[in-house]
Parts: sequence; structure tokens; C-alpha cells
Amino acid sequence: MTDNNSLTRRKFVKLAGAAGGALLLAKSTNVFAALAKKGNIASRGYAAVDTSGKLVPWQFERRPVGDDDILIDIKYASICHSDIHQEKGHWGPTQYPQVPGHEIVGVVAAVGKNVTKFKVGDRAGVGCMGNSSLENLDGLENEEQYSPDTVFTYGFPEKSSPTGISQGGYSNNIVVRDHFAVHIPNHISFQEATPLLCAGITTYSPLMRAHLKKGLKVGVAGIGGLGYMAIKLAVSKGAEVYAFTTSASKVKDILAFGAKEVIVVDGPGKLAAYKGKMDYMISTIPYKYDVAAYASVVKPYGTFTQVGMPEGFELTMNNFALSLSRVNFNASLIGGMKETQEMVDYCADNKVLPQIQIIRADQINEAWDNVINKKARYRYVIDASTF
Amino acid sequence: MTDNNSLTRRKFVKLAGAAGGALLLAKSTNVFAALAKKGNIASRGYAAVDTSGKLVPWQFERRPVGDDDILIDIKYASICHSDIHQEKGHWGPTQYPQVPGHEIVGVVAAVGKNVTKFKVGDRAGVGCMGNSSLENLDGLENEEQYSPDTVFTYGFPEKSSPTGISQGGYSNNIVVRDHFAVHIPNHISFQEATPLLCAGITTYSPLMRAHLKKGLKVGVAGIGGLGYMAIKLAVSKGAEVYAFTTSASKVKDILAFGAKEVIVVDGPGKLAAYKGKMDYMISTIPYKYDVAAYASVVKPYGTFTQVGMPEGFELTMNNFALSLSRVNFNASLIGGMKETQEMVDYCADNKVLPQIQIIRADQINEAWDNVINKKARYRYVIDASTF
Repeated sequence: MTDNNSLTRRKFVKLAGAAGGALLLAKSTNVFAALAKKGNIASRGYAAVDTSGKLVPWQFERRPVGDDDILIDIKYASICHSDIHQEKGHWGPTQYPQVPGHEIVGVVAAVGKNVTKFKVGDRAGVGCMGNSSLENLDGLENEEQYSPDTVFTYGFPEKSSPTGISQGGYSNNIVVRDHFAVHIPNHISFQEATPLLCAGITTYSPLMRAHLKKGLKVGVAGIGGLGYMAIKLAVSKGAEVYAFTTSASKVKDILAFGAKEVIVVDGPGKLAAYKGKMDYMISTIPYKYDVAAYASVVKPYGTFTQVGMPEGFELTMNNFALSLSRVNFNASLIGGMKETQEMVDYCADNKVLPQIQIIRADQINEAWDNVINKKARYRYVIDASTF
Repeated sequence: MTDNNSLTRRKFVKLAGAAGGALLLAKSTNVFAALAKKGNIASRGYAAVDTSGKLVPWQFERRPVGDDDILIDIKYASICHSDIHQEKGHWGPTQYPQVPGHEIVGVVAAVGKNVTKFKVGDRAGVGCMGNSSLENLDGLENEEQYSPDTVFTYGFPEKSSPTGISQGGYSNNIVVRDHFAVHIPNHISFQEATPLLCAGITTYSPLMRAHLKKGLKVGVAGIGGLGYMAIKLAVSKGAEVYAFTTSASKVKDILAFGAKEVIVVDGPGKLAAYKGKMDYMISTIPYKYDVAAYASVVKPYGTFTQVGMPEGFELTMNNFALSLSRVNFNASLIGGMKETQEMVDYCADNKVLPQIQIIRADQINEAWDNVINKKARYRYVIDASTF
């Protein structure tokens, strides 16, 4: 199956060749209303249709599998807090309907004629990036996430997409450029591999830049879907991990993840007691919070990395308090594709595995509420067979 | 003059031994109403009395000259934007009356019995710090500004001060611990030395940490009382300086300070054109502004230092934009005393001199308005003989 025509044989391309290629929002979950233009890929998934953030079943089309593309039959997709922010318009106006999801695993179902990296039947994963001309990387060969040419997995303008924007992984399939898929080793389950594609790489990349080593004191702030991964990764590298959470109910779990100590930040003074103690700290908190107070637990001239992205992406920082801590603040955005493959392999080899709960598509809205209310333990993984 | 009793001989201690030591706000500028408690030092200066930020003449007392203290007859004090923020309550509630001023030079008029660093008649300067037990420096021997024991020059709780808080340099004299005064070399004028005590060290310290060298591209954002010093210092160290200002009227001056290029940031796109071009950048902007947009002109993994302190000390940052720039953000607070002396000597030796305008005490309020309205060119220096 190495050419586009063969795609028309696939069972999900039900209406190939039908005119129009117009995108229709399914008014009823039981009506398959999309008309697939020749070569386009018919898809079904769950989409946000407005800033309410309530997802509904939706049938739509993806672009044809181009020469450098692969088509993946999605097996699982997991829920990242970013999905919620993006679909609710917290990061600015966006186009609807829009299918979220940037933690995606599945099986390669078709490959374009130039593709050598994958063959049909391969286990593959897709994270936050899906497409790029790859022509102007200009030093960003291993940091594609910073290239202006990169098309993020959902909600990003994409000319080749029939909807005009990229559509994500809460869906039964996806078309991406081969460069932006990684191999999922056989010795990790699909379910457990899924959250690695965003939560894994987003924490792994800055932790690797922090040159983790045995005994290094690493703080992790915000123990949700990213924070627990940061703990597990840092612990696996030999670091002494101090977890800062506002949820007292997570203490037992966090110790089981390998943290040396859990600090329940339930009042002033909790952070002050750790002033200057950490060699490095990562924050996954996806809300506005007192950044400088958290940063003050890092030793002077150490580094504090923010990976959680708050509403409007805005963080407010007390510059005087930051000056007193003498801490370097930076932000980090996922990681490059080479590093993503390295991370997936590392996690599979070292059994650094996500904590997951499998859900059906019709449970997504409830799961989103749980994520918002800090009830997720710790990553919801959607069984794509239920789309 | 090495003991406190000798102070009673000084002409300004007019009412030594009078009861009470109560602090009276002079209702009229012509009435000397302060009653100096035995050993206390009678002072006159300009004080803020409420958040209006309007200063009025005030007579008050300073603590006696302790064994480790020196008394300085102030010759000049200059105006820092921080004075305005502090006295207007922008950084939180504060006690009034309060005399601002933390750029101070003068002549040593008395020394405590333990003092060997200075003798009467020495030229001395005082910056943002004035007192400390120096007992718990705990690794901060050369970074006293980060010690919790350090008493900043004005508005800081100070038990030994008759007013309960430290009182600053818009005044005819000041008492400080000897450790917190520096020597002013003979080959720099008092007037020109004055602004070095805050504007000089605040820019010098982070620039030195940036390991300036010939050809390094240094950005300076905000070309006011600190920014032009940053330009001059960086230029003197051989850096290529790019100045970012919102005031087109400053371009000629800025080029005269030695900047290679001036970017008038008068619309979007002005910063984008310099994306990733600077090796290092310092911002002196004392207002909220788009930090991440400015930081983006620094090369990936470079450093951006904020020294301007905005209202409430709060800066808002777009964390996504910051992640795209991959820039480390930090804040810096003045510098230690050893470094302050090094900076004063460096500036005197290398003729890195402040741009000053001498004013009388009764022009302070007008000068403050000019600072706020970006009309200062570039540092107002108050002739202390006019208090």
C-alpha cells in the first residue's frame, strides 16, 4: 500500500470521489455525513465546536496521504490539559470545529511513495507536530518545534487540510508527515506509550538540559499529567525529587512514583522552608501562580523551567522576588523529533511508564472536567475504537 | 572625632539632650522643629508624606553614629525611578514621612570607634544599602543585597533609627554602617559619581555576569537613567550595543553614548527584525511591558536580565512566546559592596561617566514628573547644599 489510490480501498473511505468535499458537522452522532473528496481521508472523531469546550462527535476529512506522509490508524489518544485550553479559546480565537489531541499512537495504514522511515503495519506515535516543509529548519534540525514552518497537530493553519487547519488525535486516524512520527517499540503497550508523546517529551527535554545526575535535587511543581512524568523521569535518572503539589490526596501516589519528599503547598511558608534547596526545578502548573515564590526554592543561579501553559499563556512574576532568588527562569516547549524517539525508547527500556485510565470517547467531556478539577489520576487515554 | 560624644560638637546637632526625640514634620520649611535626642543626628531633607509622591521639606533625626558607623555630610544625591515607585506606594504600603534617595555622595564627617575603612574628610558614596548586623551573611559576603539582615537605604524597618525606618539621601547627611559606603576616587567629580551608586552598579553587576567581551552583541531596553549607563558600560567593555527605546528623541544621544544601533520600538515588527540577534540583553524598563517580545531578540539559550522594577514588582510574561525564544530570563538587584567599589573605580578610571543635570531641592517634584514623563536626560542630581 504505497500509493494514494490504494487508499480508496480502505473501508473507512466510504464515499471517495463524491463531489464537494464540503465539511459537515454531524448533527447526530449516528449520521455519517462527511463526503470524502477523491484522495481525502474520511475521519471521525470528537471536536470542539465553540469555546464551551464541550466535544461532540464529528465526521470530517483529512488531506490525502502525500508522498512524504503516513496514515495512522489510531489506537489510542490521550488527554492533555493543553487540549482544554486550546479548545476553550484560552490561548486566543481558534477555528471550529476542531479535533484536539496530540498524544497519539496507532498502526501505520499507508505510506507515501517517498517514505522509508515507516512501513504499513508499524507501530507509530505522533505528538504535538504533524507537518512542515522541512525546508527552512535553519539550525533547528533537532528542534523542529521552534521552526515557523512547523504545523502543530491541531488547530494550526494547514493549507493541505480540507478544513484549513490541522485536526488532532481524538479521532480514528491521522495523516502526518513521516518525519513527525516516532516508532513505538514492541516492549511498551500502546496505551502506556500514548502520553509519552506530549507529557513525556515535554518533561524529558528540559530535564535532559538540566544534566540530571545521581543525587541532584530536582523540584517538580504541579503533579498532574506532566508532573508525575517529570518525577518518574528524574527519579529514573538518579535525581532526588521533591514534589510540590496543592493536592494532599496525591501524596501517597507521589511517593510511589519515587519522589523523596512531597510538599503540600497549602499555605505561605511551605515554600519558604525549601528556599534555595533545589538544584533545578520544573513547573507543570497550567495556571497563573506565584512563580517567583516557587522559583525561590531553587538555589541561587540555578534554573527553573515552566512547561505548563496557562490561560492566555500569561504568567505574572514578582520581579523583585525573582531577583532575590537569583534564579534563571525559562520556558520549554515539547522537544524535537530525534529527542522524542530517544525519550520513547528510554521510557520503554527503563519502564518509565505513564499512569493511565482508559476511557471511551463518550467519556471525554467528563474526563476534561476531571482534569480541570484536578481529579485525573493521572492521564486519561481514549480507546480510539470507540470513536 | 572617633567617639559619639564628639558629635555633640557638630553644629548641626543643635538641640542635643532635649527630651523626647519625637519626630515632627516641619509645617513650614523655615521652622527647624526637630528636637535631637542625645547622640541622635539632626537632619533635614525632602520627604514623601503620602502616596501622592509630592515631597516636602522635613526635619528629622538619624540614629547616633555607632561604633561601626560613619556619618556623611551629603554633597549630592540623585533621583532614581525607584524613589518614585517606593514613595508612591507602588511596591506596597510604606511608612511616612519617608526620605527617598539611594544614590549618595559626600564627605565623611564622623566615624565610630571601630571604623578603619574611612577617616573624617574621606570622599564616600552610599547606594541602596545602609546597615546590617553582617553576622549571618552565610555565603553572601559579596552579595549583601540578598541577605535578609540588610537594611536598605530608605523605607526599611531599622530599630536603631529614631523614625523606625531607614531614611534616604535626599538630605544633608546620613549615618550608615562603614561596610556599606564606598570610596569615591579623587579623579571623578562628586556630581558625576552620584548616579553610579545605584544606576551604575545595577547595570554593571549583571553585565559582568554576562562576561562581556569585544564584539559581543548586547541589547539594552529602556534608555533612561539606568539604560544609558548600561550602554556606556557595555561599550567600554568592547561590546556592540543595540539600544531599544520608545523615545525617538533620544536617538542622537544614544549614538553619542556609543551604541552601534538604536531601534525605536514604535510598532510591532521592530523587535521581530532583531529576533535571536543579541548575545545578551538587559532591560531597565520600569513598567509592565511585553517581556517575551523583547526577550525574543536574544539568541536561543541566551540570557535576558530585568533590572527595572515595575509597579507592584509585577511583570507579565507570555510563556509560550518565551518558550519559542528559548531565552533565560532573570532579574538582578544592584550588586554587592565589593563589586560596587570595583565599579566606581572602573568608571572613574575609564571615564564612564553619568549624564547629569544638577538641580536644587525645590526642583525635585518637577524632576520626578520629568522622570515619569521620560523627559529626564538622563539623571537628576540634587545639590545637597540646597536642602
